[in-house]
Amino acid sequence: MELPSSITNAVDQFRKLSGIGEKSAMRHVLDVVKWRKEYIQEFADSLRKISEIKTCELCNLYSDTEICSICSKIDRIESKSLCIVENVSDLVAIERSKTFSGTYFVLNGVLNPLLGVGPEDLKIDKLMNLIKDRHVESIILAINPSVEGDATCSYIQSILPEEVTIERIGFGVPMGGSLEYLDSLTIRKAIENRRRF
Amino acid sequence: MELPSSITNAVDQFRKLSGIGEKSAMRHVLDVVKWRKEYIQEFADSLRKISEIKTCELCNLYSDTEICSICSKIDRIESKSLCIVENVSDLVAIERSKTFSGTYFVLNGVLNPLLGVGPEDLKIDKLMNLIKDRHVESIILAINPSVEGDATCSYIQSILPEEVTIERIGFGVPMGGSLEYLDSLTIRKAIENRRRF
Repeated sequence: MELPSSITNAVDQFRKLSGIGEKSAMRHVLDVVKWRKEYIQEFADSLRKISEIKTCELCNLYSDTEICSICSKIDRIESKSLCIVENVSDLVAIERSKTFSGTYFVLNGVLNPLLGVGPEDLKIDKLMNLIKDRHVESIILAINPSVEGDATCSYIQSILPEEVTIERIGFGVPMGGSLEYLDSLTIRKAIENRRRF
Repeated sequence: MELPSSITNAVDQFRKLSGIGEKSAMRHVLDVVKWRKEYIQEFADSLRKISEIKTCELCNLYSDTEICSICSKIDRIESKSLCIVENVSDLVAIERSKTFSGTYFVLNGVLNPLLGVGPEDLKIDKLMNLIKDRHVESIILAINPSVEGDATCSYIQSILPEEVTIERIGFGVPMGGSLEYLDSLTIRKAIENRRRF
């Protein structure tokens, strides 16, 4: 059976999204095809607009303006606390948790010698300038645990001025998690990171 | 925290798709935003194109041409077997299973007096003409089990010429399913639909 090329093309596009296989892609397309023409156009336009998005000159977060909404908030800058994240989705997740009120820096990756990702790709120079300009006093490394993530953290620590406090997010059993089903590495971290009760 | 309006707009668009909540929508948008500009444009264009899609004049399947790829295959028409489905996704699922080689008719819904869906909305006249023109001998009602689906099947049966064989797809325990976890209605159907072993 051959579906019209417009449908199969759209299915191929949806399949490029992570976590979307052929069946879900088809479902989404057969969903959209039923929408009113102007709604489909709206969807297409919203995509076209994100192809023109800019990033904040200071922290690399996506922004409509040169300086993003976070970097332009004085109380956030004045907290002198900077959180370094791997990518924008991590930043969004932290903002959603409402637990950090300083500013961010988005690395857009981690050091990875195998893939040829070095300090210049992560714009570490820009990060260092930001830390100096903002007189940052404490840094939270909100970098996910992995060999590359760990190496990136060590590298950043090694080039930071000594007076800056540097911390990494806690690792252990997630809320609602159960020791029974967790991997040994997480359990080891949870035991290592135990705290006086 | 305020993300750029281009991002939040795109998130709202993705959320309109069934099965996509706020988190997945955000994930998809933050995925797309990393793509190269021309790839995002391609995605947008593929959506624009499905807004211009036509439907087959005979069976209502989406088609680039007036008559779809299934209705234009002579061996399919000559099988004199017609499968009636609720919507295009059901047709796609049946085609994927490679178990039917006749032609289809897409109702685009089921009779629903509460929502005001009557026989004219399902283009039952068109269906009757198709059955006559093609000298259809056997009909498979591939309509999902529900009160409205059952009513739709009964209605179609009541207006069909007597010489046409009419069957409905089988209901019972799905492959890989387990009686332990199935609802009572499915189990009742499975018991009713038992076959000599």
